[in-house]
Amino acid sequence: MSGEAAFIDALRRIATHPAARGLADDAAVLDIGGETLVLTHDAMVEGVHWLPGQDMADVAWKLVAVNLSDLAAKGAEPLGVLLGHMLGGDEARFLEGLADVLGEYGVPLLGGDTVAGGPPLALGLTALGRATFRPVPARSGARPGDEVWLAGTIGGAMTGFEALRDATGADSEAYRRPRPLLAEGRALAPRVTAMLDVSDGLLLDAARIAEASAVTVDLAPMNVPLAAPQDRRADALRWGDDYALLFTLPPGTPLPVPASRIGNVLPRGAEPLLLDGTAVPPERPLGYLHGR
Amino acid sequence: MSGEAAFIDALRRIATHPAARGLADDAAVLDIGGETLVLTHDAMVEGVHWLPGQDMADVAWKLVAVNLSDLAAKGAEPLGVLLGHMLGGDEARFLEGLADVLGEYGVPLLGGDTVAGGPPLALGLTALGRATFRPVPARSGARPGDEVWLAGTIGGAMTGFEALRDATGADSEAYRRPRPLLAEGRALAPRVTAMLDVSDGLLLDAARIAEASAVTVDLAPMNVPLAAPQDRRADALRWGDDYALLFTLPPGTPLPVPASRIGNVLPRGAEPLLLDGTAVPPERPLGYLHGR
Repeated sequence: MSGEAAFIDALRRIATHPAARGLADDAAVLDIGGETLVLTHDAMVEGVHWLPGQDMADVAWKLVAVNLSDLAAKGAEPLGVLLGHMLGGDEARFLEGLADVLGEYGVPLLGGDTVAGGPPLALGLTALGRATFRPVPARSGARPGDEVWLAGTIGGAMTGFEALRDATGADSEAYRRPRPLLAEGRALAPRVTAMLDVSDGLLLDAARIAEASAVTVDLAPMNVPLAAPQDRRADALRWGDDYALLFTLPPGTPLPVPASRIGNVLPRGAEPLLLDGTAVPPERPLGYLHGR
Repeated sequence: MSGEAAFIDALRRIATHPAARGLADDAAVLDIGGETLVLTHDAMVEGVHWLPGQDMADVAWKLVAVNLSDLAAKGAEPLGVLLGHMLGGDEARFLEGLADVLGEYGVPLLGGDTVAGGPPLALGLTALGRATFRPVPARSGARPGDEVWLAGTIGGAMTGFEALRDATGADSEAYRRPRPLLAEGRALAPRVTAMLDVSDGLLLDAARIAEASAVTVDLAPMNVPLAAPQDRRADALRWGDDYALLFTLPPGTPLPVPASRIGNVLPRGAEPLLLDGTAVPPERPLGYLHGR
């Protein structure tokens, strides 16, 4: 078990509250006053989650967008964000990007904290949302016989990251300014049996649904809609940062948004994840650490 | 204007939502489903907010306690916290301190994020609470004729910090493990006209109430209850980290908790803050940057 996995495992033992499903990646869900809140917190560190020297406007955009994407996967409507900001970057650009993303999605900045520190810069953001459908979609609801679908595409963030890192001049927007699928998540929430946003790689996130649901997910990799060259498909399936929505549906469910069918849910077998019915070769991990 | 003040000022222009009173220090207040939420986020950085090499159990305690203190000043009951954790310190000790403080105050860990990064380590915590009295106390309600009171003492964190820094072996608990006055805040909320927790120095925080309320606060420094040697009174008034509750009351209001009367609210004069009727000498700032 990695140091991070061991730490999260230990945190889970502290977090006995039923709302605490979200210690690694998932969002917390809390009932209050007849409403259901969805809460998510993501941190980003210079050199780990963004390239040193990257435009701080894009960093601000992404910091907000990745949290809104967590709300999207819960079908939640954003209520606001709190910012944990470390001074020392290009504050003017950061503020521009922050105003852009908050304006684009109509999300208020409610508060936060500003500290000295770094380098490296470290930023945190908490997003708060209101569930529009209950029960709130989770990773754990997939059932054998369900179909596996994807709204959005995979691989654009990978090619964008490489363009930015290598200064090729090619389009890098999918990496720099991901778009949380908030409307799609709200439309899907009443229909899905399980849903998450693909933040750490499609294969890894599909395996997470499988583990949480005690099923096996069998993906058809060639059906995954790619925003990258065909010869990068295997890499794109393991990259993250695309913030597509991965979800499962009972067969015959009408689709409220454009999406691609990319697999099936099977009774739990020896492996949580299959590709075209075959186990994933152990020499290729499901996801990997990358520039985000 | 300092870089931090300029940044917060710019943030305020982005944050037009009425809930956004908390961009520097205050908590955000948000109505939902018949309840009123109180939200606060504080970040801490190694070498800025704690001494390098300090026991991570104490760091975890303080990270939670300072956020709970923000809830205390709003009379809010904690609902839970989200942790933004950076790996690289003594995780076992951190987890021990986290379990201690969450257990002590009965607060659930709802979720969060764990990242690689640093040094320096940077941590963030978001605390969520439910208001027990509305309107929620703010800094802005003090009125001329009100009395100024303090629940708790001042100076203990300063002497504790110095003991720890200089390894004198003297008691440093007030600095390492501050105790948020949650019960006191809830008891006071229905009575006060203004309230905050003293995090950045009593004089600075008193001036904040004065500015927010458009009044002048006249403090009697000799009446401030000290947890430090008498000859350190002037320093203690400018230190922070004690998390006492500073509040204003109409004269004759029955006090529900032990507290000390330390001043009066006057109509706004030339200065926001007076000490025994006299302006604060400009060569002594109201608060200063320190080890927290």
